[in-house]
Amino acid sequence: MAGKVFFSVSMSLDGFIAPDSPEELMGTQWRELQQWVFRQRHFRENLGLGKGGEEGRDNDIVTETFERTGASVMGKRMFDAGEQMWPEQAPFHTPVFVVTHEEREPWERPGGTTFRFVGDGIESALDHARLAAGSRDVRVAGGGTTVVGYLNAGLIDEFHVAISPVLFGSGIRLFEGVEDSRVRLEQTGTESSTRTTHLYYDVHVR
Amino acid sequence: MAGKVFFSVSMSLDGFIAPDSPEELMGTQWRELQQWVFRQRHFRENLGLGKGGEEGRDNDIVTETFERTGASVMGKRMFDAGEQMWPEQAPFHTPVFVVTHEEREPWERPGGTTFRFVGDGIESALDHARLAAGSRDVRVAGGGTTVVGYLNAGLIDEFHVAISPVLFGSGIRLFEGVEDSRVRLEQTGTESSTRTTHLYYDVHVR
Repeated sequence: MAGKVFFSVSMSLDGFIAPDSPEELMGTQWRELQQWVFRQRHFRENLGLGKGGEEGRDNDIVTETFERTGASVMGKRMFDAGEQMWPEQAPFHTPVFVVTHEEREPWERPGGTTFRFVGDGIESALDHARLAAGSRDVRVAGGGTTVVGYLNAGLIDEFHVAISPVLFGSGIRLFEGVEDSRVRLEQTGTESSTRTTHLYYDVHVR
Repeated sequence: MAGKVFFSVSMSLDGFIAPDSPEELMGTQWRELQQWVFRQRHFRENLGLGKGGEEGRDNDIVTETFERTGASVMGKRMFDAGEQMWPEQAPFHTPVFVVTHEEREPWERPGGTTFRFVGDGIESALDHARLAAGSRDVRVAGGGTTVVGYLNAGLIDEFHVAISPVLFGSGIRLFEGVEDSRVRLEQTGTESSTRTTHLYYDVHVR
């Protein structure tokens, strides 16, 4: 049976997933947004930050999200930012398909992450990712424009948003440009931890 | 002991609390945003829509929010829209202070709602409301601009946002213009019902 197509992001209460410029990524706000992830054991070990970290429900969520993912799709801007920031052992450990107009040979990293560059659109990138993922799920990793592109195309089955208790005031919004006329949401679950609230939705196309 | 200053609103997952124009208020999206309120027994009886309605936890939240409120503050745009839409027995049943530059005599409605028009700013309106509320709480009823004005001034103690499973794509945002450098949030609770997720925050001034 084919897997699901999903996304999973951390969002501020006012709807932002990142600051306007990558230089701000290490700022206080961004850390507040992501701190429920950064402190988890799975996240720290996966990025090679050493042993240790929390092991509660938030860690389970990070681990489950990683384990269900057989392949990822991402936009070029997210890849460009990540190319500078990921460690040599990029944290995906699966095939990753980058939607881009730039032609480029596959980029294989130690640890099982291979980036492939797809020039003929988001549907094609998803087809590649589905094939690579087999029975596991495909994660649309980001950024916001790519997530909204897949949402508007009716290609997302379900998603998880962790709403962190922080207000950005400005930055890159998750749902900018979403076509409300296309997308109907069904709330399927909620759970809160000390640092964030996890919301789960199924997506139905109107 | 003086009461708290709070707000309580329904927000779409992408951050909107109302459509761009009041004519859209009866549209499908707006109804989806508010349906967790519209179906509750307290809401229906308070608006004179007759007996009946749901009586679960969502109804308790609507009732508790009403009962804790000793006075409300609202912006002029919210008042102008409401003046057309509220029934003769306006649904507040307490003093309401409208922040406006327009001079106008108090407007008393049957059922205990009296609107007073305050011309010297949001702090003055809040002072009036605090005095009127006594030991009960003051609700900043809306709209978005007024809520953000009080947030940025460090005058909100706590708030409740019901995040409904709907995407608007456009409209009036709740947190537009919030100054992140002023406001620090502490998540104090979460509960979900079948139609929405209730998030509760304390506000600390940085």
